[in-house]
Amino acid sequence: MKLFSYFYSSAAFRVRIALNLKGIEPDYVAVNLHPNAKEQLQPEYMAQNPEGRVPAIVTEDGLLRQSMAILEWLEETCPEPHILPFDPWLRAKCRSFANTIACDIHPLNNTSVTGMLREEFGADEDGVLAWYHHWIARGFRALEKVASERKTGYLFGEFPTIAEICLIPQIKNGRRFNMDFAEFPALMDIEERCYALEAFDAARPENQPDAPIV
Amino acid sequence: MKLFSYFYSSAAFRVRIALNLKGIEPDYVAVNLHPNAKEQLQPEYMAQNPEGRVPAIVTEDGLLRQSMAILEWLEETCPEPHILPFDPWLRAKCRSFANTIACDIHPLNNTSVTGMLREEFGADEDGVLAWYHHWIARGFRALEKVASERKTGYLFGEFPTIAEICLIPQIKNGRRFNMDFAEFPALMDIEERCYALEAFDAARPENQPDAPIV
Repeated sequence: MKLFSYFYSSAAFRVRIALNLKGIEPDYVAVNLHPNAKEQLQPEYMAQNPEGRVPAIVTEDGLLRQSMAILEWLEETCPEPHILPFDPWLRAKCRSFANTIACDIHPLNNTSVTGMLREEFGADEDGVLAWYHHWIARGFRALEKVASERKTGYLFGEFPTIAEICLIPQIKNGRRFNMDFAEFPALMDIEERCYALEAFDAARPENQPDAPIV
Repeated sequence: MKLFSYFYSSAAFRVRIALNLKGIEPDYVAVNLHPNAKEQLQPEYMAQNPEGRVPAIVTEDGLLRQSMAILEWLEETCPEPHILPFDPWLRAKCRSFANTIACDIHPLNNTSVTGMLREEFGADEDGVLAWYHHWIARGFRALEKVASERKTGYLFGEFPTIAEICLIPQIKNGRRFNMDFAEFPALMDIEERCYALEAFDAARPENQPDAPIV
């Protein structure tokens, strides 16, 4: 398997965690999303993935894009260890948690979006940060409630699922943009539990081959 | 089952289509998202759904929010007729198509987002429309390629799936904001096929109880 990734991409971070949990070691192919490079929009990459985004994986069946679809496919084709609960209602609640991040928070904090805020609407850095923090806080207030009411070690049981797989990269992304997470202690507890696991730790941006050496 | 919906919400439109396809008739509870009402952020609704968004359904197990999680739950608990293909790779491609809309297009065109563009960044109507059209066009170019290369009546086989369930509301939303879809003939063909089905037609915004009488 081949993984198109960028160290800082939090959608790629999700897929890296899932692959680590399931013990799959893909060939890591870096696609530089930095505004000065924009490799994801170059013809070489677009010919393979016309969406011009990462992550994408290449399997023996072809290329698959969209992190959430990749997570579901991994769960269906390589179920052990599981990244979704077994009970249908818990699975639904777990997907709901993950989608709050994947559909309501992360899309608004994507670099292509904040770039357009700057270029088209003249947003300055304070404006972009306020935008960024607004969407995280709005979504995280609902998620903190879920996390604080849980009776299990992880969000939806005793093993991490796609909920944690989406949460940890979103927190990481927020820290990069100076988000203050003091309002979300239950989510911070989940973060600590996750980074204690090798699969999450190894998937961090700074542990990727395309991370800058500091 | 109870459905919290708003006639214009395209995420609620998705759930309405799926419920119709599966023959489920929920109690329709209108939540007025209009900027002058903002019922979704009022305490009565927030007490039930702290996320302050629609759609949500109330089942005997409790409230479930996030349209994509609701679609997956419906497919798991009420499988016939199916809204996902059977083959794992096709399922993955189908989820990937749906997520391009659910994660990369729709979140940026949400009224809460365009409202913030106006209020925080002083965007005028032309600026908002250009933003709106940009994200649809970028995503739809990749989706048109998928639709034009298909060999089946619908996108991923001979019955509509979550791909069409996400596509049709997004097109509807685009038309509302004067998007020109001439560039996407294969997607327009899918739209025509879908509206020939009662489940899609009955789910249209104008056919909902909270639609204004014109």
